[in-house]
Amino acid sequence: MPDPNRLIIFDTTLRDGEQSPGASMTKDEKVRIARQLERLRVDVIEAGFAAASPGDFEAIRAIAAAVRESTICSLSRANDRDIARAAEALQPAARKRIHTFIATSPLHMQMKLRMEPEQVLEQAKLAIRYARNHTDDIEFSPEDGSRSEEDFLCRVLETVIAEGATTINFPDTVGYAVPEEFGMRIRRLRERVPNSDKAVWSVHCHNDLGLAVANSLAGVAIGGARQIECTINGLGERAGNTALEEVVMALRTRADYYKLAVGIDTTQIVPASKMVSQITGFAVQPNKAVVGANAFAHASGIHQDGILKARETYEIMRAEDVGWTANKIVLGKLSGRNAFKTRLQELGIELESELEVNAAFARFKELADRKAEIFDEDIMALVSSEEQDHESEHYRFVSLAQRSETGEMPHARVVFCIEGKEFVCEGTGDGPVDAVVNAIESQVSSGAELLLFSINAISGGAQSQGEVTVRLSRSGRIVNGVGADPDIIVASAKAYISGLNKLYSKVERVNPQL
Amino acid sequence: MPDPNRLIIFDTTLRDGEQSPGASMTKDEKVRIARQLERLRVDVIEAGFAAASPGDFEAIRAIAAAVRESTICSLSRANDRDIARAAEALQPAARKRIHTFIATSPLHMQMKLRMEPEQVLEQAKLAIRYARNHTDDIEFSPEDGSRSEEDFLCRVLETVIAEGATTINFPDTVGYAVPEEFGMRIRRLRERVPNSDKAVWSVHCHNDLGLAVANSLAGVAIGGARQIECTINGLGERAGNTALEEVVMALRTRADYYKLAVGIDTTQIVPASKMVSQITGFAVQPNKAVVGANAFAHASGIHQDGILKARETYEIMRAEDVGWTANKIVLGKLSGRNAFKTRLQELGIELESELEVNAAFARFKELADRKAEIFDEDIMALVSSEEQDHESEHYRFVSLAQRSETGEMPHARVVFCIEGKEFVCEGTGDGPVDAVVNAIESQVSSGAELLLFSINAISGGAQSQGEVTVRLSRSGRIVNGVGADPDIIVASAKAYISGLNKLYSKVERVNPQL
Repeated sequence: MPDPNRLIIFDTTLRDGEQSPGASMTKDEKVRIARQLERLRVDVIEAGFAAASPGDFEAIRAIAAAVRESTICSLSRANDRDIARAAEALQPAARKRIHTFIATSPLHMQMKLRMEPEQVLEQAKLAIRYARNHTDDIEFSPEDGSRSEEDFLCRVLETVIAEGATTINFPDTVGYAVPEEFGMRIRRLRERVPNSDKAVWSVHCHNDLGLAVANSLAGVAIGGARQIECTINGLGERAGNTALEEVVMALRTRADYYKLAVGIDTTQIVPASKMVSQITGFAVQPNKAVVGANAFAHASGIHQDGILKARETYEIMRAEDVGWTANKIVLGKLSGRNAFKTRLQELGIELESELEVNAAFARFKELADRKAEIFDEDIMALVSSEEQDHESEHYRFVSLAQRSETGEMPHARVVFCIEGKEFVCEGTGDGPVDAVVNAIESQVSSGAELLLFSINAISGGAQSQGEVTVRLSRSGRIVNGVGADPDIIVASAKAYISGLNKLYSKVERVNPQL
Repeated sequence: MPDPNRLIIFDTTLRDGEQSPGASMTKDEKVRIARQLERLRVDVIEAGFAAASPGDFEAIRAIAAAVRESTICSLSRANDRDIARAAEALQPAARKRIHTFIATSPLHMQMKLRMEPEQVLEQAKLAIRYARNHTDDIEFSPEDGSRSEEDFLCRVLETVIAEGATTINFPDTVGYAVPEEFGMRIRRLRERVPNSDKAVWSVHCHNDLGLAVANSLAGVAIGGARQIECTINGLGERAGNTALEEVVMALRTRADYYKLAVGIDTTQIVPASKMVSQITGFAVQPNKAVVGANAFAHASGIHQDGILKARETYEIMRAEDVGWTANKIVLGKLSGRNAFKTRLQELGIELESELEVNAAFARFKELADRKAEIFDEDIMALVSSEEQDHESEHYRFVSLAQRSETGEMPHARVVFCIEGKEFVCEGTGDGPVDAVVNAIESQVSSGAELLLFSINAISGGAQSQGEVTVRLSRSGRIVNGVGADPDIIVASAKAYISGLNKLYSKVERVNPQL
């Protein structure tokens, strides 16, 4: 058994986080985030759900090949096919975990599985037995566990531990739990399951009532769990999962109280937060704990009163400790290809071929011509938009001209390619963005509904790149398109076209309820 | 004493919330929020800190006159001048509370107050005695209470209760507390202070470790507190305060556990959240509990699997219960002045004169000419930008022409007035927004640093208004400018000019550390 005073941080940004509508990521984006999670020294990275889609499978495989330090995990239903698929995707990993689940609540067993409890018990047992052929590191989750009957749940958990499950994860699927009660529930389960000490217990909480972090901590402090499942920025369906940055900083800042060691390199927290926010288009609000722009008073530049010096000694966290540093001008117009490539490496961006580096460098030079100061955020956005462009390039942006003037209707002319053929189209609208969308749709007639349109300045200030996220919906499918450019109207056009490309590529997937 | 099973919700959005850098509000904005808090049935509204500035004083007075149902509270230091000022501002209120505070931690007493503990004790006593001349509803907070010596703290609290303080508020100023420990601390204080049952105990938590809601609930469930201090959207310095929407929905959803009545009309939560976000320019992240755009799965339009119907019966909250409703087209081009005025009233917007209604209506017609569907959010933005324009109109936006085209430098021509005199200025930049800022600065040379630039679509989709927030800093002072327009470049220009106007008007204030 592992050290009882060490807590395992299990990150599921790439699996449960990605399940939030609009947060889907490409394989390359996932690999980039996984590398950052490795730098963060996350113990376990849940990289996806191999059987959910070929895209998930490929992403897990790529991450398993790219990451050496963290254990890589794939989710799988409790059947041989899913488990074999997970094992295959995990094959290149240095350390691998299979996380298998089956619903144990009366509702799910009856409505979704159409199985009797005894069948569910048997299937869980066989799944663990099968998974053990592939790895010794096996996690089991009773899906919808918080609505399961406790007697049955205890029997299932005892059985899977006896069969070789090494981690037992208890989810608060709907975010209904309150801390003390949740902690007591974990404790009771651990007391009732006779062989509970043969497994590490884990908690997986959702934030619907704003209590995910507190519930996770209660699961640890009261319940004796030694693994917390969490995501960067608390990404996840609805109100999201336990935020990694909050739960880690609570454990670290209040080590006097929790007395548990956590292996995280906290200085990598803010870079991870920015990366996930940028890739998914999910903004972080300024008053978000730890990673919000205002989370540290000094970062906001506020005038401090006379007690500043004394106060610093009482600060509960230091901004540097979680990776807040001033924006640095890292590169400029005169930077060469080597400097650019080195910076890419420092940022954990590994492009697959020299051809891709060349293409990114060309874009960098083009950007540097138009923008004097290039920040890390700019480079990340540039590569991100580069990757999006190349991923599934049914539509491609070429150029744009737009104008607006008080008293006249805003007008846009967009040139773009559809499968290599160039089209010029024009449109007007309420504003220049609307005009751009109308221009593109005059040619494309996508039938997509625009659910969300958001623009963020990438590095603060007006002289920065604008990053635009559009969320498109068609026939119940939701995708995010992202585009970056110093000109926010151009960024809008790029984002819209990237969204159309994502709609164009079809994906089917299964979303478990953990 | 009040009903022991009823919990008092004390909202401090307008006081502690406003202390966050960049969240300052005008008097009219504060009154608008206060009316919404009244509709929300908040028990106590902390409207400001009367002695902090003439602006705070006027805002409290206006709120005291406008709100009938909620108790209106002003913060004040523990001295006669501050208390008299608070009482004067609260004079029009139907129900009034004076909230006085003094630091009780060794650090603050020595460094800030330069007073001996006995002097602090005496001053607290005299302050309560003096405040009782003005009202029977008196709250006392030991500033920096969490770092105070417990013996001394107990003496101070016993003294102020004996003198007539009816509420004792215990702040976790730096957000260092963890739930059980915090709850036990409140319980111990209540046990040690002999006359503790003569006052309602209150908690005031900060969210630096993501635990503000859980700490507040522990203060109630374990500690026996019966007042929670909180803010809409968890607004506040750094990571903010306890979020009203989260703590209320936790108490409501888990009434089986907490067994406490809360008087809040939860259907007013989302309107309050949107109003505060719009006025302050502080965005709410999509995965924010209760009020985030994704907080309810169905609101995001996600495709649900076959278990949807059964699942609904298990939903822990319903979106309607917290005020999520589909965007409704409320007005259009053909709507008349009466329909417009009625809608303003329904939205809780009370303009001071018919002249102002006329001006707002003219803007509405102008907007309706350019935008087919007018939503509630549009009307709120319109009035908000209207008020900003009139508040301190040193600079005034007149018109704008801008263009950008791939391969050319974006260009903007801005016409604006400085104290009534019209200026035409031109500028170029990396993008059209940069060009606009450069054009304005070519005339103004404000010396302001642009800290933040953010654009939000007000009602989703491209055919919506854009709302731009700029955060400017000059000589340590930080202001927010907000502008709205269907054309986001025009909105950017308006926001920048509104920020310049706010920088132009000087304010001095004191920020207590509760």
